[in-house]
Amino acid sequence: MNKEKISVPRGTRDFLPHEMMRRNYIFGVIRDTFENYGYLPIETPAMENLSLLLGKYGEEGDRLLFKILNSGNFMSGVDTLNLTASQLALAVCEKGLRYDLTVPFARFVVQHRQELTFPFKRYQIQPVWRADRPQKGRYREFYQCDADVIGSNSLLNEAELVMMTDTVFSRLKMDVRIKINNRKILAGIAQLIGCEDKLTDITLALDKIDKIGLDKVNEELLSKDIPATAIDTLQPVLLLQGTNEEKIKQLKTILQHSPTGLKGIEETETLFGFFATKDLAPLARMELDVTLARGLNYYTGLIFEVESLQTAMGSIAGGGRYDNLTAVFGLPDMSGVGISFGIERIYDIWSKLNEDNTHAINQKLLALFINFGQEEVLYCLKALKRLREANISAELFPEEAKLQKQMKYANDKQIPYVILAGENEIKQQQYTVKNMRTGLQKTVSFDELITIITEK
Amino acid sequence: MNKEKISVPRGTRDFLPHEMMRRNYIFGVIRDTFENYGYLPIETPAMENLSLLLGKYGEEGDRLLFKILNSGNFMSGVDTLNLTASQLALAVCEKGLRYDLTVPFARFVVQHRQELTFPFKRYQIQPVWRADRPQKGRYREFYQCDADVIGSNSLLNEAELVMMTDTVFSRLKMDVRIKINNRKILAGIAQLIGCEDKLTDITLALDKIDKIGLDKVNEELLSKDIPATAIDTLQPVLLLQGTNEEKIKQLKTILQHSPTGLKGIEETETLFGFFATKDLAPLARMELDVTLARGLNYYTGLIFEVESLQTAMGSIAGGGRYDNLTAVFGLPDMSGVGISFGIERIYDIWSKLNEDNTHAINQKLLALFINFGQEEVLYCLKALKRLREANISAELFPEEAKLQKQMKYANDKQIPYVILAGENEIKQQQYTVKNMRTGLQKTVSFDELITIITEK
Repeated sequence: MNKEKISVPRGTRDFLPHEMMRRNYIFGVIRDTFENYGYLPIETPAMENLSLLLGKYGEEGDRLLFKILNSGNFMSGVDTLNLTASQLALAVCEKGLRYDLTVPFARFVVQHRQELTFPFKRYQIQPVWRADRPQKGRYREFYQCDADVIGSNSLLNEAELVMMTDTVFSRLKMDVRIKINNRKILAGIAQLIGCEDKLTDITLALDKIDKIGLDKVNEELLSKDIPATAIDTLQPVLLLQGTNEEKIKQLKTILQHSPTGLKGIEETETLFGFFATKDLAPLARMELDVTLARGLNYYTGLIFEVESLQTAMGSIAGGGRYDNLTAVFGLPDMSGVGISFGIERIYDIWSKLNEDNTHAINQKLLALFINFGQEEVLYCLKALKRLREANISAELFPEEAKLQKQMKYANDKQIPYVILAGENEIKQQQYTVKNMRTGLQKTVSFDELITIITEK
Repeated sequence: MNKEKISVPRGTRDFLPHEMMRRNYIFGVIRDTFENYGYLPIETPAMENLSLLLGKYGEEGDRLLFKILNSGNFMSGVDTLNLTASQLALAVCEKGLRYDLTVPFARFVVQHRQELTFPFKRYQIQPVWRADRPQKGRYREFYQCDADVIGSNSLLNEAELVMMTDTVFSRLKMDVRIKINNRKILAGIAQLIGCEDKLTDITLALDKIDKIGLDKVNEELLSKDIPATAIDTLQPVLLLQGTNEEKIKQLKTILQHSPTGLKGIEETETLFGFFATKDLAPLARMELDVTLARGLNYYTGLIFEVESLQTAMGSIAGGGRYDNLTAVFGLPDMSGVGISFGIERIYDIWSKLNEDNTHAINQKLLALFINFGQEEVLYCLKALKRLREANISAELFPEEAKLQKQMKYANDKQIPYVILAGENEIKQQQYTVKNMRTGLQKTVSFDELITIITEK
């Protein structure tokens, strides 16, 4: 085989042990937090029926779905001449790789609704696949990490998601800002300027204000046939300033004639109300941002998005309330609210913040026993067995190699302690343990050995 | 959308929370054990270049690979008329879903050899995909779970894998038998009967002895043009009986003229030697079984396989020594040894054995706070926050629903404690906690609450 071909497909990655240890640490923090909040895990298959995925992500999404060729004689009965490439793709592919976790989750809820306890709180951490053009930070295979509660209208769910988000980032020691808005406020604004039918265009334009600035947003609104007078009316909303309370007060005036807008303000006030006392205030700053729209058009109520204050990287988590996720699969009136953590970005930021101490984090392997030959091996194996029974990770170098080679192995694997047991140690039923960081060594009993290597 | 279509593709599965909790428990035991033994995690992409996968799993394997349609105008320049279906498939697909973890691991080692520390000990737990005909217990998407050490010839690696296997099944409280053989013994036997060129046919036939019996194995050998006299010579080997020591002694006589066979016996004796003392003896019975062949032809030394003694389900784990896994990718002379746990089967057996107590296992969610309205909610949220800071999983029912509905939710989710806090409790800064198993309830302080709900 040609050596050039020894690689992964474009846009996909291998994860080496030192990367996996960091990823597992971050995923573990998020998973533990989800479980602390009563969210339970589910998994869905990598493949879904293509008929179920198509039309859910817009035209571009349909194009970016990875399609799986039917098995067997897949061309039988397919008329290649009269079909376009995309029609042909559907003729020879029944299945596709999941594009996100949301559509599979909606399908899951509808399919299993008789088996689930509602309100149903689930989390899901699995890879998704998109045939996007690969570029820095954008992959064709990446993990998504979602938590949703479905079957409850209560705003307490939103409050819990905000608390959970705050817990995740404080456990990861990352400084973030949580931006809050409400689709009903956006709908009220669209009403205010007489453009209710343009809500999607308006939210898509607003969503870009951080990236392209106010002027370009105004240009875009104009290009979407929103009248200049309407855009003028919109400016005070876009320029809203002050504390959250001040913004809410101004919005109440601006949107006084829009029942939907007022409902949105009320919900937003309720949400902030949960965090009004010192006991329940989140560590992260929460900020009402009426330009926050979030691209997905299935949101219907409160929406939120998280930004890192340490690295400019855009949204690293976000979510909101949706009222009709499962309706497309025949189950209407199931209100839900969810959050998605951008764990690939979180991993990138966290890794950079912890560049210097990543090795220590999640290092479970505490000791390497040096291999001095057959008799010593049997002595070490007995100690190893006892350590492992005590759930302490350790290993024995498999070959009677030069000491230098064995020490290099311990160094490369960042193992903090090396244990040397030769003739003398065996005679005394002791172990010489060397701290790889300080270089100090000490000859001790088995019980002392455990104390030393498990010391924090 | 048609309701009939709300389902997963044939041969794939959703996992519900109660299933995930059991799977995560089992996967966690295996993962912890791997890490206790110094194996580190890696992950590889779901997709590999098809050129890399093809030809590695035999003709049937090639057929069972899931192929991913190229993006864009995939038919451009493809001559549909002059190609067979399988040629056409390769013309329109560059990528395939991984079929196992072994070939991706070999590719990984070759690609990253400059970044790895050898001997390299890795584990990998990820799904694989096969376009097999789905049937009971056979899925098109299933997890594999492999641990390998590559770059070391030492038999200590084999011994560690046996110890690790023993640890996994003893932690899972599953009774198993570990069958051991050596490909060199099988090669010696082929020499003995003058059929060295038929080693693959012989091992494939021997591999079936447990399933189809001695007579049918003899028939199959005959059908592979192995002379009747050779099959006669083979019978004492197939009928070998006694303890491991007795079998080894007999084999030494039978294979006395085969240097390869004697080498295989020596390695096998060395392996058993590690477990000769009481301190190091495994809990599971280890048994030399010369009819054990294992289907994969890349094994070159010791091989082993694990069977459940509680459920007849065939092999639930197995592995062995291979000398040339990476040679196909241009890296020769990398000896390795590995084990693969059949975690889907292990899950089935374990779940059956633990049918009655699965709910208690891995139940992290300890308490549900009843929702009595806005003021009570704020009181409960404060307690909840403190519980979660102490890493205790608990939740608050999101709606002020009827008590009965909230209690049913706790029951359905198998939450062991329900906490009720109304006007009186708030006045006293207390909590009424109800044990859902016994029905007993008690009004206590926050500290007592923690003690009660975290009690084992």
